[in-house]
Amino acid sequence: MREQYKHLDASEIPQTLLVQRNIQEQIHSEDSINFYFIVLAKLMFDWIINFEMGINVALCLLFLVLYSILKRKQIYANIYLPRLVSEGISQLGDGYSFERILPYVNWVKGAWHPSEEELLANSGFDAVVFMRIITFGLRVFGVAAIIGICVLLPFNYMGNQLNIDFTDLPNKSLESFSISNVDDGSNRLWVHFCAVYVFSAVVCYYLYSEYDYISCKRIGYFYSSKPQPHQFTVLVRSIPKSSGSSFSESVESFFTEYYSSTYLSHSMVRRTSKLKGLINNADKLHRRLFHLKSKNDTQQRFGRAGFMGLFGGRVDLLDSYEKKLEDMEDNVRTVRSTIAGKEVPAAFVSFKSRFSASIATHIQQGVKPTEWITEPAPDPQDVYWPFFSASFFKKWMCNLAVIVACVLITILFLIPVIIVQGLTHLEQLEIWFPFLKGILSIKIIGQVITGYLPSLILEMFLSFVPPVMVVLSSIQGYIALSQIEKSACIKVLWFFVWNIFFANVLSGSALYRVEVFLEPKRIPEILAVAVPGQASFFIAYVVTSGWTKTVSKELFQLKSAVWISLKSIFCWSSDEEFEVPSFPYHSEIPRILFFGLLGVTYFFLAPLILPFLLGYYCLGYIIYRNQLLNVYAPKFETAGKFWPVVYDSTIFSLILMHVIAIGIFGLKKVPLASSLTIPLPILTLIFNSYCRRRFLPMFKSYPAECLIKKDLHDQRDPTIASFYDKLATIYQDPAMNSVRCSGNSERINSPLLHSVEN
Amino acid sequence: MREQYKHLDASEIPQTLLVQRNIQEQIHSEDSINFYFIVLAKLMFDWIINFEMGINVALCLLFLVLYSILKRKQIYANIYLPRLVSEGISQLGDGYSFERILPYVNWVKGAWHPSEEELLANSGFDAVVFMRIITFGLRVFGVAAIIGICVLLPFNYMGNQLNIDFTDLPNKSLESFSISNVDDGSNRLWVHFCAVYVFSAVVCYYLYSEYDYISCKRIGYFYSSKPQPHQFTVLVRSIPKSSGSSFSESVESFFTEYYSSTYLSHSMVRRTSKLKGLINNADKLHRRLFHLKSKNDTQQRFGRAGFMGLFGGRVDLLDSYEKKLEDMEDNVRTVRSTIAGKEVPAAFVSFKSRFSASIATHIQQGVKPTEWITEPAPDPQDVYWPFFSASFFKKWMCNLAVIVACVLITILFLIPVIIVQGLTHLEQLEIWFPFLKGILSIKIIGQVITGYLPSLILEMFLSFVPPVMVVLSSIQGYIALSQIEKSACIKVLWFFVWNIFFANVLSGSALYRVEVFLEPKRIPEILAVAVPGQASFFIAYVVTSGWTKTVSKELFQLKSAVWISLKSIFCWSSDEEFEVPSFPYHSEIPRILFFGLLGVTYFFLAPLILPFLLGYYCLGYIIYRNQLLNVYAPKFETAGKFWPVVYDSTIFSLILMHVIAIGIFGLKKVPLASSLTIPLPILTLIFNSYCRRRFLPMFKSYPAECLIKKDLHDQRDPTIASFYDKLATIYQDPAMNSVRCSGNSERINSPLLHSVEN
Repeated sequence: MREQYKHLDASEIPQTLLVQRNIQEQIHSEDSINFYFIVLAKLMFDWIINFEMGINVALCLLFLVLYSILKRKQIYANIYLPRLVSEGISQLGDGYSFERILPYVNWVKGAWHPSEEELLANSGFDAVVFMRIITFGLRVFGVAAIIGICVLLPFNYMGNQLNIDFTDLPNKSLESFSISNVDDGSNRLWVHFCAVYVFSAVVCYYLYSEYDYISCKRIGYFYSSKPQPHQFTVLVRSIPKSSGSSFSESVESFFTEYYSSTYLSHSMVRRTSKLKGLINNADKLHRRLFHLKSKNDTQQRFGRAGFMGLFGGRVDLLDSYEKKLEDMEDNVRTVRSTIAGKEVPAAFVSFKSRFSASIATHIQQGVKPTEWITEPAPDPQDVYWPFFSASFFKKWMCNLAVIVACVLITILFLIPVIIVQGLTHLEQLEIWFPFLKGILSIKIIGQVITGYLPSLILEMFLSFVPPVMVVLSSIQGYIALSQIEKSACIKVLWFFVWNIFFANVLSGSALYRVEVFLEPKRIPEILAVAVPGQASFFIAYVVTSGWTKTVSKELFQLKSAVWISLKSIFCWSSDEEFEVPSFPYHSEIPRILFFGLLGVTYFFLAPLILPFLLGYYCLGYIIYRNQLLNVYAPKFETAGKFWPVVYDSTIFSLILMHVIAIGIFGLKKVPLASSLTIPLPILTLIFNSYCRRRFLPMFKSYPAECLIKKDLHDQRDPTIASFYDKLATIYQDPAMNSVRCSGNSERINSPLLHSVEN
Repeated sequence: MREQYKHLDASEIPQTLLVQRNIQEQIHSEDSINFYFIVLAKLMFDWIINFEMGINVALCLLFLVLYSILKRKQIYANIYLPRLVSEGISQLGDGYSFERILPYVNWVKGAWHPSEEELLANSGFDAVVFMRIITFGLRVFGVAAIIGICVLLPFNYMGNQLNIDFTDLPNKSLESFSISNVDDGSNRLWVHFCAVYVFSAVVCYYLYSEYDYISCKRIGYFYSSKPQPHQFTVLVRSIPKSSGSSFSESVESFFTEYYSSTYLSHSMVRRTSKLKGLINNADKLHRRLFHLKSKNDTQQRFGRAGFMGLFGGRVDLLDSYEKKLEDMEDNVRTVRSTIAGKEVPAAFVSFKSRFSASIATHIQQGVKPTEWITEPAPDPQDVYWPFFSASFFKKWMCNLAVIVACVLITILFLIPVIIVQGLTHLEQLEIWFPFLKGILSIKIIGQVITGYLPSLILEMFLSFVPPVMVVLSSIQGYIALSQIEKSACIKVLWFFVWNIFFANVLSGSALYRVEVFLEPKRIPEILAVAVPGQASFFIAYVVTSGWTKTVSKELFQLKSAVWISLKSIFCWSSDEEFEVPSFPYHSEIPRILFFGLLGVTYFFLAPLILPFLLGYYCLGYIIYRNQLLNVYAPKFETAGKFWPVVYDSTIFSLILMHVIAIGIFGLKKVPLASSLTIPLPILTLIFNSYCRRRFLPMFKSYPAECLIKKDLHDQRDPTIASFYDKLATIYQDPAMNSVRCSGNSERINSPLLHSVEN
């Protein structure tokens, strides 16, 4: 992974060399830092235009321009403005209206303008928290950039440790701005020492105020929310088998006995995955039939009935479909009646008050802790459990299996890394595939293979990680999409930290990395040697992975845009259903947090990373706001539960930075600074322990005060009776309810998408 | 600590040498293990009678005999039968009745006989759990002894690794029974491998069934208990300051608003330590006055009024005391009235049902997690908080301080260890204190100083550990004696493990021990080298510290017995108040668990430890039962909350054994066995994770089902109204209530012993 950038770092740029040397000499002769910023700007400009980064920056700009143009075309509305489309603005029928709404590149203004309240109303609390993650990054790295560029960089540059040879510019020149250039034992390192302390304090301050702000907002959001079914409902698993009565009767008798005054109703969970598959197939057929009927095109009405419409005799598709649909509906009815009798020992139990539901989730219900296990129910729209396990033991075993799977995936990720490392060595490739020798000898192909293919392959493999983690999290027994995404978010983050950060810093096998962590005493030293060496790689990574991918993938939606362009050019048509996507928190939050980790750890090692990071966060601020407002529709609402993940990750980044600082000061022969840094991680952990007690409980559940206040408020609400009526049926499986297959637009917003499979 | 046994190990016993050598030769020539048990018995007998252990065993027997005799004397009743004394049997007035109750050594039968139900009724549930810890040990080490003596010992003995020189008996001969004697790479090690697996399975099985049994008993105990104040009450700390109303009004309005149907009453906490000091002094004076009046001895009525009754003019003490008492009572009244206005932001809040109290402790009350912090209230008799902190922040800071203090104490414990290590080297002592040269040259004194003084000093320092840990736990913010004892129990246990087990195994500085644990990879290897070498020391430790100290300290109450004997001989009298002691769980449970740890870790290394351990547990079974029935009165009831500590400690012991096994098999060149042992700790941890979920919640709080059932049952109870009346006042500080100083027998069972100090 690192190798593909190595050869770029080593390239020389003769045309700018003389200019630079002149400037450098000027500085050294005058021994002043007046020209410092000129040199810096010059070097960075050279560096950007001469490296792969240059290409990436160019791509980035290209995508921005393309987006600004394409956004106004009607055919791209589905990918650039799906929310507006779904809300009916597309009904206006021509591109004209879109141009009026957002003329030219005014989309930046459109994304910038809305206030936090408007964002909250439009995209939910999670979107607000997501944007606050970015503004938190902007604040932290704003301060860091001021300290880094104005204080640390000049001191680094004044050092002579590396004995910079100015014939080897501009690669080496970058290193002259890093801590590696400060002389061993120099008193200037105390500046870095102070910077580490100040920066840690700044991060902790922002972290605390942000935690405070978000937790207050969260409570406010709860107070302002309307009664929601999930607030009144709990999911009960591991209902014990009692002889002579069904699970449903057990639930009824248990809750009427112990919660006589507040128990409202319950809905049993059933294994409906098979039924759901049948209904889905019927739905598809129904839709095709509808499509066919609406077209009234006799040409299309006849097709071959055989495999994929390619074989068999020509038949009237309309008749054949209608017959098939009838068969299917019969089948659905049969299966439904058999399933109705088969209960799973799990149920949604609804109460008349939020407080009662909260009590039921907080206090162990049955005498046996493995029976009557309760947890807060998710919103009916949010329910998603491809691998639901109703029993405690099964869920516990699944949890274990997922831990093992996570470890395996981390180890198996070595395979793509090895492939990539193989690709960067052309000779190796020629030995493996001798027949490629001819092709590989063509210079441009060789360059593409060694330069671009590796990062492409790696990114491809990395792009599989978030979906895989989502699957693992769902196996783990989470029952809501929001919980699964949060859990996957954490998994993806640690995967990034382990397989991007540590894999690059501690090059070598996964086993070597594990071994390093088995010798905790040597960690600071090893990190101090390895981390600064990767500064230029990670600066490049911020631009290539951060800038370009955010713009291209997130804003420009490269894949979808190309697909739609092809479709419009070749006039393909499809009866694909249009669906507004939901924001992929599980893949985007880890990315932002990973860049945050890079920023925090490299802040005092190589402050040059900071301007690029600030650029990433600025770009992200505009683009993500735009996307949240125009593209994504919120599918669930966790009310800020992603924030504690951000908090944990930031604390980890700080501790990592402190450990590296301890190592670096030791390595640079300032043992006193090294020892004086040791209190810093301890203080950070104490701060962490305080914050966790001060704020975390508010993100786990709502306090009694809020719940009871809301309940009392509801009692005065005349609509609450109708809400209770709705509540009694809303958690019933829709597959079990509808007599006819749905097939209509209701399906998209169907209240419950269970699919209990095991 | 180890050294004092070293010189004993090296001593030779010429008289038994020939016999042993003959037997050894016989075995080797016949190459059979028929004589194995004869040799074993002979060697052990020799070893016991020739070592310090012999003296200890003799002492142990002596104490047992003395106890059996002295127990029947009236004057020792206060230390051997305080419960009977306090229950009024002493009122019979002569030694005769005691002899009738327990003639001769029938006390063993008396301790053996009562069933678990009788023990429960007599000494509470904690006593039952305590005895079950011992029977758990008996069961586990019973199985271990069968495997160890019948399977492992012969295999160890058949090895030739140590090339035993039979002129160096019997020290070496003991090692020939340990795993060290098995040849490197020998297939016999697979027997040990199997033994480790089987033993782990047996321990886990017993652990599971015991956890199950105790948790069922706990629920049963709850069902059978009468309504108790602490079940209906919570302690609320960090009551927020609201302008215009006192804390008491805040509490009243908060709970009447949110728990309108179940809130009963509250009692504010007040800082009464000063008042309590005054009342105590007045009490003492009152008692002395009473004593004086009852004697009617004019001789004693006159004394000197000055310092300690030694100086000043002779006065009528009766008058002087009465005047003093009046002054004191005035003072008490003044202080009481000033304190009444000063509230602490903490209160006991009582509810009408157990379930409501449980709700209040389980759900965060206020919006801010650092306000309205609730926790279950202890029993009024159990309340004890010399360092109560009403605010969240203060408590959190105290917690941090205690962690630092624990680390410091562990490090400072090096000082007595160094002193002891100095004492074992006479030459060193002579250099330090030249004037002692003459005395030290006397052989018997030298032997006492090097042999007995070190262990005496160490034991003295170790005996300070439990009280110090109790103080630390009380600083930590626990509000009940039971919680403090439980927390101290855990602290003492880890102190023992660290400062006895690891200090002896990894000889060297504390820093070295820390360093070992900073290199986790090397731990199995280091332990495998170090642990078997300490087998003979720990066998001796079981006898000296386990047998003798249990018998002498616990049963014979050496110190008190000597003190009473001296008093009776010299006819000293005292007006000391007689109080039935409570069982010191915090010092006894760690001792038993530490021996359990020794047994588990040495089970496959040196199975010879097992018979001694079984002896200890048998002795403990009888003695502790006797003490629980006759000596100690239960002061609090945790309903089995000590059991999870036992469980955790056992799991830790198992994991430690597994780590040592991994190291040993590697060291003995059977790498396959070493690798195949790795799943064992993982399986144990999985078992642990399951058990924690399956049982632990039942020890933290009672489930809703039980609480509501009991509440419903109470509602039909006609006495509940009077219980509510009692509940409303029982948590009020007695120092604030009584108008006159108490001074009567009520004081001992005073309902509340607050002493809020900071």
